[in-house]
Amino acid sequence: MASLQAARNLLRYFTGTKGFDSVLKQVKVLSAGDGKCTCEMEISDEHLNAGETLHGGLTATLVDSISTLAITTTENPPGMSTDINVTYMRPAKKGDTISIVAECLKVGRTMAFVNVDIFNKSNGNKLIAQGRHTKLL
Amino acid sequence: MASLQAARNLLRYFTGTKGFDSVLKQVKVLSAGDGKCTCEMEISDEHLNAGETLHGGLTATLVDSISTLAITTTENPPGMSTDINVTYMRPAKKGDTISIVAECLKVGRTMAFVNVDIFNKSNGNKLIAQGRHTKLL
Amino acid sequence: MASLQAARNLLRYFTGTKGFDSVLKQVKVLSAGDGKCTCEMEISDEHLNAGETLHGGLTATLVDSISTLAITTTENPPGMSTDINVTYMRPAKKGDTISIVAECLKVGRTMAFVNVDIFNKSNGNKLIAQGRHTKLL
Amino acid sequence: MASLQAARNLLRYFTGTKGFDSVLKQVKVLSAGDGKCTCEMEISDEHLNAGETLHGGLTATLVDSISTLAITTTENPPGMSTDINVTYMRPAKKGDTISIVAECLKVGRTMAFVNVDIFNKSNGNKLIAQGRHTKLL
Repeated sequence: MASLQAARNLLRYFTGTKGFDSVLKQVKVLSAGDGKCTCEMEISDEHLNAGETLHGGLTATLVDSISTLAITTTENPPGMSTDINVTYMRPAKKGDTISIVAECLKVGRTMAFVNVDIFNKSNGNKLIAQGRHTKLL
Repeated sequence: MASLQAARNLLRYFTGTKGFDSVLKQVKVLSAGDGKCTCEMEISDEHLNAGETLHGGLTATLVDSISTLAITTTENPPGMSTDINVTYMRPAKKGDTISIVAECLKVGRTMAFVNVDIFNKSNGNKLIAQGRHTKLL
Repeated sequence: MASLQAARNLLRYFTGTKGFDSVLKQVKVLSAGDGKCTCEMEISDEHLNAGETLHGGLTATLVDSISTLAITTTENPPGMSTDINVTYMRPAKKGDTISIVAECLKVGRTMAFVNVDIFNKSNGNKLIAQGRHTKLL
Repeated sequence: MASLQAARNLLRYFTGTKGFDSVLKQVKVLSAGDGKCTCEMEISDEHLNAGETLHGGLTATLVDSISTLAITTTENPPGMSTDINVTYMRPAKKGDTISIVAECLKVGRTMAFVNVDIFNKSNGNKLIAQGRHTKLL
């Protein structure tokens, strides 16, 4: 519970700045702790590409930021990204609710590695995208 | 020249929607044609992470969208992303001007592959990040 | 059971050629079916890098080939690779037995996407590496 | 010249062990120095997949090992891999000669980042694959 509140506070802090994380202001943290963080977001106009589906750049931003929340639940600093990859499997559309599940694969002294799955709750929980994020702590 | 104007019009169209591409509204197209597109952007508050450097999610969005502009200069449709990766090498800060250079490695009948280099014009043109984008046409 | 035998036969066929897959001749298929394939291998001298740990190139080869076995359990052809990525988390040494778990994330009409986890059975089943493979079918 | 000879000696040392690098015994170093290393290899039976084209696992091994040679030309240790990615663009066949060009993007105190292009000299120098390798030094 402590880490759930901490993750919510941290996300609020991120999205409350004038910075780029304000694009995540519709994201809600559902659970957080032990290197894992689960969020959800309803897709609205501001999340779409010109083809009216979830923008790949926002998907990558979710991989980046929600994996960082997962790392912070391990009492580690957020670190600096070295590598991100995202594989896109299915489109998602306005009105769909997606869940973002970030899970630390390893958090060592020097590096952290996080997998992120993004599911479509409005479409049978099918996998929309999967990403991996490597950070130098 | 025709493709430069076309790329400018397309980027304007993207960023003029209510969608996510509006985060790219400070991007300027410098050149475009023959599978290559070069842009620049001055980093301002809205592009930063909580550590006050260029946000990795925006970097990934630049890889996504500017590579797509490069593909469209080859008279192909923008396609659908299958994979994106980004390697982050150096931070960049508010006030820095970055250049984004997207170059198609191959545009075939089915797939397009684009490399994107992002340099810091305000710091000796050093490489900030490099990404690769694979799309199904 | 049918698909287990089919996967074993296919791997035997691969490793029995004069080709590069002969590097996988120590790999055993433990289970296969429904888009998933689990294998194991004991690490010996021929699998090591100069630092005497499991070679990253062999790890990538396992991601490549075992994910392809997983795809074939779905009654699809093996396809052609477009992208592979591997994240390396822990070294493994001579004598360790590793398990390789490949699971299709999506097999569509055009593209297949597979995640591969590699664990060290001799070290608490800890994750050594994770990779993802995208193929055009 | 000193670093060319050093790279040749190092590759010879790698391929002369009982380890996995022996799969690279046909690779020749053409030039090496200042964070760059260029090699070539003629494709023979032992490099092929079941479809009789250059095996993706060997391509990834080339990305891994030749980028490491490039790092060592900067007077740094070879380091430990954290991430590798490879994008496959064109097949190559038996008898083709490929060139492998590894170039360090950045070698810092903690991390090294290397791009690797693989061209087909027997087919108009077309790009077969591109990879990127991130190492912790």
